[in-house]
Amino acid sequence: MNMNSIELVDCDVHCAINSIDDLLPYLPEVWQRYVRESGFRGPPPSWYPKMKRHASRDDSHPPSGRVPGSDFEFLKHQHLDLWRIDRAVMNPLYPVDCLPHVDLGAALASAHNDYMIHEWYERDERMRGSIIVPWKSPELAIREIERVGGHPRVVQIILLVCTGALYGQRQFHPIWEAAARHGLVVGIHWGGSEPPRASGAAPSYYLEYHVNLAQAAMAQIVSFVCEGAFEHCPNLRVAIIEGGTAWLPSLMWRLDKDWRGCRMEVPWLRRRPSDYIRDHIRLTTQPIEEPDNPHHLMQVIEHMGSDRMLMFSTDYPHWDFDSPSRALPAALPKPLRQRILADNAIEFYHLT
Amino acid sequence: MNMNSIELVDCDVHCAINSIDDLLPYLPEVWQRYVRESGFRGPPPSWYPKMKRHASRDDSHPPSGRVPGSDFEFLKHQHLDLWRIDRAVMNPLYPVDCLPHVDLGAALASAHNDYMIHEWYERDERMRGSIIVPWKSPELAIREIERVGGHPRVVQIILLVCTGALYGQRQFHPIWEAAARHGLVVGIHWGGSEPPRASGAAPSYYLEYHVNLAQAAMAQIVSFVCEGAFEHCPNLRVAIIEGGTAWLPSLMWRLDKDWRGCRMEVPWLRRRPSDYIRDHIRLTTQPIEEPDNPHHLMQVIEHMGSDRMLMFSTDYPHWDFDSPSRALPAALPKPLRQRILADNAIEFYHLT
Repeated sequence: MNMNSIELVDCDVHCAINSIDDLLPYLPEVWQRYVRESGFRGPPPSWYPKMKRHASRDDSHPPSGRVPGSDFEFLKHQHLDLWRIDRAVMNPLYPVDCLPHVDLGAALASAHNDYMIHEWYERDERMRGSIIVPWKSPELAIREIERVGGHPRVVQIILLVCTGALYGQRQFHPIWEAAARHGLVVGIHWGGSEPPRASGAAPSYYLEYHVNLAQAAMAQIVSFVCEGAFEHCPNLRVAIIEGGTAWLPSLMWRLDKDWRGCRMEVPWLRRRPSDYIRDHIRLTTQPIEEPDNPHHLMQVIEHMGSDRMLMFSTDYPHWDFDSPSRALPAALPKPLRQRILADNAIEFYHLT
Repeated sequence: MNMNSIELVDCDVHCAINSIDDLLPYLPEVWQRYVRESGFRGPPPSWYPKMKRHASRDDSHPPSGRVPGSDFEFLKHQHLDLWRIDRAVMNPLYPVDCLPHVDLGAALASAHNDYMIHEWYERDERMRGSIIVPWKSPELAIREIERVGGHPRVVQIILLVCTGALYGQRQFHPIWEAAARHGLVVGIHWGGSEPPRASGAAPSYYLEYHVNLAQAAMAQIVSFVCEGAFEHCPNLRVAIIEGGTAWLPSLMWRLDKDWRGCRMEVPWLRRRPSDYIRDHIRLTTQPIEEPDNPHHLMQVIEHMGSDRMLMFSTDYPHWDFDSPSRALPAALPKPLRQRILADNAIEFYHLT
């Protein structure tokens, strides 16, 4: 397929289950019984009220009564058809990988992956899917990647950015090796089981929580680079999803400068941190920053030192949705627009 | 005094005690005895080895054998005289305010403040000083501000950026009110008793720790703005010291955008977050970002939407010292250079 036949890739579309009942047919009997008898209904909602029901657009609640993002036909019509999206990377955000009970979480992750593959990813040729892996146990996570990571519609393992882990750390490298072996991107998405604590304290408001998760994204990038994950695993690709974009140049500049002063400490790094970032990491655009002067955002993209870093995303059906027609600055040169809207994602996710 | 007679202000010079023995004459007998009998020698060093002894320049160890920054005459000659610094904001970084024993910490903070005022700030007319306050107890912190905050050489209370607290939160507002009443800036400096945990996890390396403390600075700014600290205390001024500079525009853009979506949650905010930031917050320059193309940094300063945001600093005597002659891009227009090198600090710290 010619790259030019794919003109719009949305790298962050959320599919969801309506409730844990959707997963029961995919769960082993022992965990079905556990769910029935324990009354467990899934991971709890956040302590930060989210301003909108299910954090979703008012118009995204399907007539079927299912929760936003959980009605396959409704999502296709309201989003993929309306915007003529050629490829959508589907990101389920069910944080069972964060449960303290690792085996229960692993069973729910497997059930969730089977549900999404069979009831979503296989049923529309535009969809490419992410799988959830129980990263708290690298052994179980690798087993899940071996089980479903080779499915032709699966392109990514999806993690949440703030879960009490720095994913660059050594205990996780075998998982990322397994992902790379299967050609999967490691996607790190806004959200998680923990509040972001850049100063050690949890913020008071959802507004702060929402803004500060960008700091968690920065910390994850720093971790992957400094731990040598890209030296250890040269085919590893990491997508930072819904983390923002405009802070990337400042992070690269600071990391390069500090690395010059501290490189004795991380002798396995053979190149500048920003070189690893440009080769191995991409950012999705939503929520794209909106300076009063849109030209400033174009300067920031220039500061990244590459036209390959950004991949367009909408975050459908969430409240802070960016539309394909209006999110990018109107003055963006056409070749760069095409890179962001489609080509960068086609290359990074190996889309066809 | 005409502003033009002050041409170079260094907003981050570190004075230090050589050891806790320097403080003993300033401590009440009960705490002198505690120190003698307990063997306590001060807050422990960080778990992250700092690449350089005392994190300091090789040439900053005084012939007297005292630790870098603790020899008054040596510091004056090596730094203030050499660079012809007109005013230096002195920032002692002795983290006794972070001790679990709040009263011991408060006593040590008072002793440290008396030592610095009498043995440093009063002894050189170029020096303006910061005081340490036991912020874990707002009552004791206010008492310390009332005790020494009116000293004519004291211009700032100094905090560390990563101590397990978000300083914008409500319990701290009475302290900031007291600081504002005495005309003091609230300075928040790189470092602290905790590792930065933007994703919930502590990083592995000093390189990461060093880079990620910028995230703690961002979280502190977000906290001050969202909690309405600047509405509650209209004269409050906050200096972010050694946190970096180039991330500020992206933070303002994201915070403004998210505030538009979440402003129902923080109804006390009457203006855009970036308006509060431009009116109440300044950043010191060191460690200034060094993009390959220095013009990019000048664009970032333009993105801040104000030529008042940056105040020059060296971080003497630390290893990542920025020199007055070389730190700022050579192409910086002269009026902006003068603002950064002196005028912004003169206005913000009310220097004479």
